Amino acid sequence: MDETERDTRGLSLDRRAFLRTGAAVGALAAGAGAARAESTPDPLITEVQPWAKGWGDGVDATPYGLPIEFEGDVIRRNVPWLTADVISSINFTPIHALEGTITPAGCAFERHHSGAIELKKEDYRLMINGLVDQPLVFTYEDLERFPRVTRTYFLECAANSGMEWAGAQLNGVQFTQGMIHNMQYTGVPLRALLEEAGVKPEGKWIYVEGADASSNGRSIPLEKAMDDCLVAFKANGEALRKEHGYPVRLCVPGWEGNMWVKWLRRIEVTDQAVESREETSKYTDTLADGTSRKWTWVMDAKSVVTSPSPQMPIKHGPGPLVITGLAWSGRGAITRVDVSIDGGKTWAEARLAEPGEKMALTRFYFDLDWQGQEMFVQSRAHDDTGYVQPTKTQLRAVRGENSVYHNNAIQTWWVKPNGEAENVEVS
Amino acid sequence: MDETERDTRGLSLDRRAFLRTGAAVGALAAGAGAARAESTPDPLITEVQPWAKGWGDGVDATPYGLPIEFEGDVIRRNVPWLTADVISSINFTPIHALEGTITPAGCAFERHHSGAIELKKEDYRLMINGLVDQPLVFTYEDLERFPRVTRTYFLECAANSGMEWAGAQLNGVQFTQGMIHNMQYTGVPLRALLEEAGVKPEGKWIYVEGADASSNGRSIPLEKAMDDCLVAFKANGEALRKEHGYPVRLCVPGWEGNMWVKWLRRIEVTDQAVESREETSKYTDTLADGTSRKWTWVMDAKSVVTSPSPQMPIKHGPGPLVITGLAWSGRGAITRVDVSIDGGKTWAEARLAEPGEKMALTRFYFDLDWQGQEMFVQSRAHDDTGYVQPTKTQLRAVRGENSVYHNNAIQTWWVKPNGEAENVEVS
Repeated sequence: MDETERDTRGLSLDRRAFLRTGAAVGALAAGAGAARAESTPDPLITEVQPWAKGWGDGVDATPYGLPIEFEGDVIRRNVPWLTADVISSINFTPIHALEGTITPAGCAFERHHSGAIELKKEDYRLMINGLVDQPLVFTYEDLERFPRVTRTYFLECAANSGMEWAGAQLNGVQFTQGMIHNMQYTGVPLRALLEEAGVKPEGKWIYVEGADASSNGRSIPLEKAMDDCLVAFKANGEALRKEHGYPVRLCVPGWEGNMWVKWLRRIEVTDQAVESREETSKYTDTLADGTSRKWTWVMDAKSVVTSPSPQMPIKHGPGPLVITGLAWSGRGAITRVDVSIDGGKTWAEARLAEPGEKMALTRFYFDLDWQGQEMFVQSRAHDDTGYVQPTKTQLRAVRGENSVYHNNAIQTWWVKPNGEAENVEVS
Repeated sequence: MDETERDTRGLSLDRRAFLRTGAAVGALAAGAGAARAESTPDPLITEVQPWAKGWGDGVDATPYGLPIEFEGDVIRRNVPWLTADVISSINFTPIHALEGTITPAGCAFERHHSGAIELKKEDYRLMINGLVDQPLVFTYEDLERFPRVTRTYFLECAANSGMEWAGAQLNGVQFTQGMIHNMQYTGVPLRALLEEAGVKPEGKWIYVEGADASSNGRSIPLEKAMDDCLVAFKANGEALRKEHGYPVRLCVPGWEGNMWVKWLRRIEVTDQAVESREETSKYTDTLADGTSRKWTWVMDAKSVVTSPSPQMPIKHGPGPLVITGLAWSGRGAITRVDVSIDGGKTWAEARLAEPGEKMALTRFYFDLDWQGQEMFVQSRAHDDTGYVQPTKTQLRAVRGENSVYHNNAIQTWWVKPNGEAENVEVS
């Protein structure tokens, strides 16, 4: 996108001014289309409608309910050309259509290395072996007897935004930033299980495997394992879904999703990292010179505007517009999000829906009196370590364009006067 | 239950001692059944199982997923004899089987007065009229243009525990305390819409109606309407489910669920309460002398142990046992929950999973080294106003036994040595 193509009229980004001005808010009725009741008799409000004339569904209609049929487009979606097959593949959370921070399990993204397996609770076993005083095998019911905790965490795939390194490519936030979900997990601190087995002094790492064919083995430093990792059996209050590791998965808060091993089967305490396939030929970051960074576990601070975005065009004319999005950091809590509508030339602070929680999604809002001009909408996250989300230019200066992992660059949506939005880059 | 039937051996309720004692925790391996790996070769962990030999489901299997088949009992349930028909009826959240605090929408209870109607976003209208400067009609898209907020709130039906006034009756926490759910709502503060219309000085109440045949009209003081009420269009991130008011419902934080009008259609600003059917012959609390209290909108502090409970018997022998449950208050945040295992003679403080949030569910845990004796398990909530959840005896002394509403008494589960639990009362 050329500088000269941009609309750089002096736009007021001061949300507070918009909210403070009685006149501006008063103008919303006309601007936003709210009709004056007496001047436009609308049968939908003045006449008795069919749905007010009879019975609706009774409470036995859906013992476990699904979204209403009209929301049929709020689903996980695959990108067929992205991987060789749908078994070893990815689908994406429809974050463009969601609000708040909790991701409903039904539309939370999936990434499988050998498909989602079906494993009954009674067939579930978890072994802890290696450098421990007493190797142990736990059943599901054993896990239920340990003191448990409940915490909300985001899970982001290391490859989220991975197709965007070389340039803007996928035209929808579901596909560019949708390998993320955020759920409230309940489980047992991994520390409690390791202490039950007794870690020997020479134990410095754990190697974690799933029960599926891929096993998806990953090494994790003992320090992280003993800190905040969770052996989780519930998400958003209910049993983990099959596709998210039923009956038990590992949570590794703030770290790349590939380490959150599903159908958790075995934890071996070791004196060094295993250097498995999943942490050498995969999930390492190839740099410009062809060498690779490894052990880049933490997901750095990132944010994205979810609406407006290519899948969520503005459907109304000029006037009040809610810009909203998500921010997160694997290093801690989001403290601030800035929004720009001129491609990063000027920034204004967004409003956080609630104070940032450590290693969990944060919702932000930016209320704008849109003049109907084109915009280059961006967001920029700050976390409580002082880290600020980089531009693509800044990220490429360090990392080159050879990686598919850990792209946390600022995203740009080109919003046109007709309200449609497109994935673009600005320098 | 006679005093003499109770087991009153001197039980240690000191959770901290249990957790501190290395020996006690070490004994968990045997007590909780975790096997020593080398001594009991278990094919489920030592042999390659079928699910590790091939492919699982690919990511296109379920664009919008449901729970795995093995969780088919975690569903909303009706009590057929409770109401005349399933259209004007109730089902209950399976809180016995849930964890954490978020209620998945798919199993969050429903209460309908004329059934769950189907109303498209494009057919949706919200009128504000009455004592306003400018009557207004909003479309769904109009609402999306106002500054919005995201907050988590519980919704409890005023009739929750209503069948328990005269004595222990329904044998399951799903039925005794399950007319509650807790979701993260996104919507527009009602205040913003009322200010858009301009409330006249003589406006002191609002009267709120739904689009269904029952209309379920309720009066709400203007002060509450202007404080924290929300015109919500999302719950747990996604569109409201049909049975919860799609596309728009009212949230009245901390107040009885009947006021959270679904399929929200009209808000009339009035100078006094309408005194409709739903706030006179229904949703008022009949006292011992036959007179009725009205305007008992706030849901007082309450708690309940969800496991063990009649639907969640203890399936293992003596040793470590997790007692867990939920607490909430319509007046503010839960500050403390106590647990008793001897029917309220002695109490110990439970551990809150996270600090209490205002007008939202709080999860508590109580880790016990169970000796295998019978127990009379209770929980008692405290909120930040200093209010303490009453016993049934205390509640009846004030309210009698004629009401079906606002029963927030302490619940007792009689847990037998075989682990089964029963709904009982202790004096």
